[in-house]
Amino acid sequence: MPGLTRLQCRSLMRLSGRATPIARQQVTNKTPPARHASSQAASNGSKERIVILGSGWAGYAVGRTLKPSTATRILISPRSHFVFTPLLASTSVGTLEFRAAIEPVRRLNLDEFHQAWASDIDFQRKVIRVEANTRGDVGAVTGIQLTKGTEFEVPYDKLVLAVGCYSQTFGIEGVKEHACFLRDIGDARIIRLKVLAAFEKASLPTTSDEERHKLLHFAVVGGGPTGIEFAAELHDLVRDDLSKLFPDLKRFVAITIYDIAPKVLPMFDQSLANYATEMFRRQGITVKTEHHLQRIRREGDHLMLKAKELPEEVGAGVVVWSTGLTQNPLTSLLLGREIDGLGKIAKDPRTGGIVTDEHMRVQLEPLQAKVSTAPSAAESPTTPLPDVFAVGDCTAVKGRNYPATAQVASQQAAYLAKQLNKGEANSSSSAPFKFRNLGTMAYLGSWRAIHQSGKDELKGRAAWILWRTAYLTKSMSIKNKIMIPVYWLITWLFGRDISRF
Amino acid sequence: MPGLTRLQCRSLMRLSGRATPIARQQVTNKTPPARHASSQAASNGSKERIVILGSGWAGYAVGRTLKPSTATRILISPRSHFVFTPLLASTSVGTLEFRAAIEPVRRLNLDEFHQAWASDIDFQRKVIRVEANTRGDVGAVTGIQLTKGTEFEVPYDKLVLAVGCYSQTFGIEGVKEHACFLRDIGDARIIRLKVLAAFEKASLPTTSDEERHKLLHFAVVGGGPTGIEFAAELHDLVRDDLSKLFPDLKRFVAITIYDIAPKVLPMFDQSLANYATEMFRRQGITVKTEHHLQRIRREGDHLMLKAKELPEEVGAGVVVWSTGLTQNPLTSLLLGREIDGLGKIAKDPRTGGIVTDEHMRVQLEPLQAKVSTAPSAAESPTTPLPDVFAVGDCTAVKGRNYPATAQVASQQAAYLAKQLNKGEANSSSSAPFKFRNLGTMAYLGSWRAIHQSGKDELKGRAAWILWRTAYLTKSMSIKNKIMIPVYWLITWLFGRDISRF
Repeated sequence: MPGLTRLQCRSLMRLSGRATPIARQQVTNKTPPARHASSQAASNGSKERIVILGSGWAGYAVGRTLKPSTATRILISPRSHFVFTPLLASTSVGTLEFRAAIEPVRRLNLDEFHQAWASDIDFQRKVIRVEANTRGDVGAVTGIQLTKGTEFEVPYDKLVLAVGCYSQTFGIEGVKEHACFLRDIGDARIIRLKVLAAFEKASLPTTSDEERHKLLHFAVVGGGPTGIEFAAELHDLVRDDLSKLFPDLKRFVAITIYDIAPKVLPMFDQSLANYATEMFRRQGITVKTEHHLQRIRREGDHLMLKAKELPEEVGAGVVVWSTGLTQNPLTSLLLGREIDGLGKIAKDPRTGGIVTDEHMRVQLEPLQAKVSTAPSAAESPTTPLPDVFAVGDCTAVKGRNYPATAQVASQQAAYLAKQLNKGEANSSSSAPFKFRNLGTMAYLGSWRAIHQSGKDELKGRAAWILWRTAYLTKSMSIKNKIMIPVYWLITWLFGRDISRF
Repeated sequence: MPGLTRLQCRSLMRLSGRATPIARQQVTNKTPPARHASSQAASNGSKERIVILGSGWAGYAVGRTLKPSTATRILISPRSHFVFTPLLASTSVGTLEFRAAIEPVRRLNLDEFHQAWASDIDFQRKVIRVEANTRGDVGAVTGIQLTKGTEFEVPYDKLVLAVGCYSQTFGIEGVKEHACFLRDIGDARIIRLKVLAAFEKASLPTTSDEERHKLLHFAVVGGGPTGIEFAAELHDLVRDDLSKLFPDLKRFVAITIYDIAPKVLPMFDQSLANYATEMFRRQGITVKTEHHLQRIRREGDHLMLKAKELPEEVGAGVVVWSTGLTQNPLTSLLLGREIDGLGKIAKDPRTGGIVTDEHMRVQLEPLQAKVSTAPSAAESPTTPLPDVFAVGDCTAVKGRNYPATAQVASQQAAYLAKQLNKGEANSSSSAPFKFRNLGTMAYLGSWRAIHQSGKDELKGRAAWILWRTAYLTKSMSIKNKIMIPVYWLITWLFGRDISRF
């Protein structure tokens, strides 16, 4: 039933009383798959091949917004899904089911999707070299020991770089090995399993009280919205659920947020940051500002943290790392070298990102710029690299200082996709990208949040309602728009999900 | 708020306008946890300690049914949840969320729960030796390399053995390494990931058509209800969802069921088994009876299967193993040795299970029975081992020949728990256990099922409705009773979940 949506198919099936058996559909013996052949050969049809690298806030939004009528849409990402990052903390404590925070890329029905890493780009041949990620997002679980991913080339007419950033560990010992990140859905799952494992371990009759204190100390490094919201959600989990299931362990639980800055939530005005600190104090969450973590090491079943400002190591069951970004290896590779006869892609000296103009066009700097005394990329003369665009965290718009947030990434993506739809992406004459600040929100626990939009401030229960509503309207698919409130209701009625799965 | 259900707590919180912050609750400085101390020392209170080993159909049902007023209820299981096994196949293809098929044991609010393996039992000291499973159900995922689980002892007054069975691989080469089982929720997740990975791998432009045929051949070994239902659900997934997401791959998909017996679904009458075979034929699922699998080996990204009856090896992307049971190592350990001065636990010669009488009391045979010419356990004289009971797949009721099904296990568990509640479990005078056959069902794909209860038969759409309704009413918690139809509705509207997570 081509051309029909699933919903329409379902209705038809219901009307006709039965679905078409696959066996009947299988008899047609088609020629080899057209879509795969097309990625091998250069484009020869009338439609342009627009290739998007990445399935985060930027890449997924470009893929969603591109019109199928105007271009062949190809998305390449090592992840098969988009993650609705603001809900990650909720999924990590069982308030929401993991799946409610992700959208499979295949459901966008693009013309091609390759679950693969882009390992290199030849801007002259207009070809991307990719390595398949057939192990999937959590390949390790399946026990499949696949060989190194197959490598192949994907040609493009227009290219959108939306590869995002990696987490920055600042080279601190033990962070990569022992801390949990909170950037993908697999991270959220690992945190949930580790928190519950710490409680099970602490509940054993053979565990000493000293060990219980260590196991049930949850450390969060980084006082930005991600770290703050995780601490708040974890506090809710402990108070509402785990303290009932493990009543004897409640007194051992502690949550600490460490940050190197003098205050947490720097993007909020002082009054809101103070409100957050006061909320946390009442909830028993400790905030330690101006603390520099120096090492994390494992000791038996718990971890030991060393901070410069603390005389002794502190034990912790789980450490969540939510501070700092660093450029993706592909970004570094592309920025580090010369493109024959064209110049070099301009690199933002502050973030290390790809410099674009206000039309999201990747900028080249002439080669002699290298020898000059490194002027700020914002000042040096640059020219656009034709047909190559960049959006999201991997970019730095010339002369602007946008934060690396989902809001900026999705607005840039929507702008660029519309330009591509109109066929004006390469043009300098169209209206440039303009960021519209819709405000920042953070959940603080106990059904309270803060929200700031310019000078407007909102805090407490009203901000929490706004926080939940905003997530519902921003959430991607209709399916998740239905499921998220269902999960909230179920959690409210029956408590969070505490199965160790 | 002791004594209140969560629902009542939530209502109270709503009325009072806020929840109690954990910080206030933490100031009380209690003496060391009473519940842990109690598992170290022998019972000295007035209530009996009833210890249940296992959290499957038998163990979980005993835990649920025991009255908190009459006994201290302790459950020990390496798994922190109960699995609603008839829904496993649905979760493995994304029709249902995994979590809808499990119930966390901690939600039963028993007096003690230890996530641990029982490694030995001293029937004279009335003590169980356990090893903690702190890695959780999917410990490997978390990356926590814990030391060997702590060992400790748990004393009992009455003991219920409900340890179930393991999967039987008949020593066939490669089954353990390469085949998927479908007994726990983690198995369902691995199958889902492997099926989707096979499609992603097959969709790569570099994959040959020959390799695609191998990757997209799904082999099921065992033609019982589990294998049949998995094949049916997989067929639905391919027809409804994957054939739309991967239209070019549809023609490579094949599903085969192998069984050594001359017919599949032996528990159904011939007319229903014929209906199933005809349904499968129309859906393009191949049933190969009287086929003996001899080996599974990996070759690159796919597997190769060797059957005695086939001249050549057959490629397969995923092999699901759903045939045969073998006794749990604890059962074998207990049955293999003498209990000083008492005798030996009687072993059923057919299943290798623990012999019980019709009151589910574990039976001892006198030691001299060993030297006689191995008479059937059903005939030899046995006596009950006081305070020790066994239910479910690990048992064989003397003189009966109950199948190893969830129905038998849960009815035995309910019977025993009621006897324990009445304080009559050790008595021979009360009414013996009687199995009431409620019928057998199997889903066949395309919204059709078969159902048999004695001479009554039902097939097709009506049986499918009965199949779904039965699962709803039998499903354990109210939460899942709400969520299961929600997931069904969502799947019907938006398709199955295809995220590789």
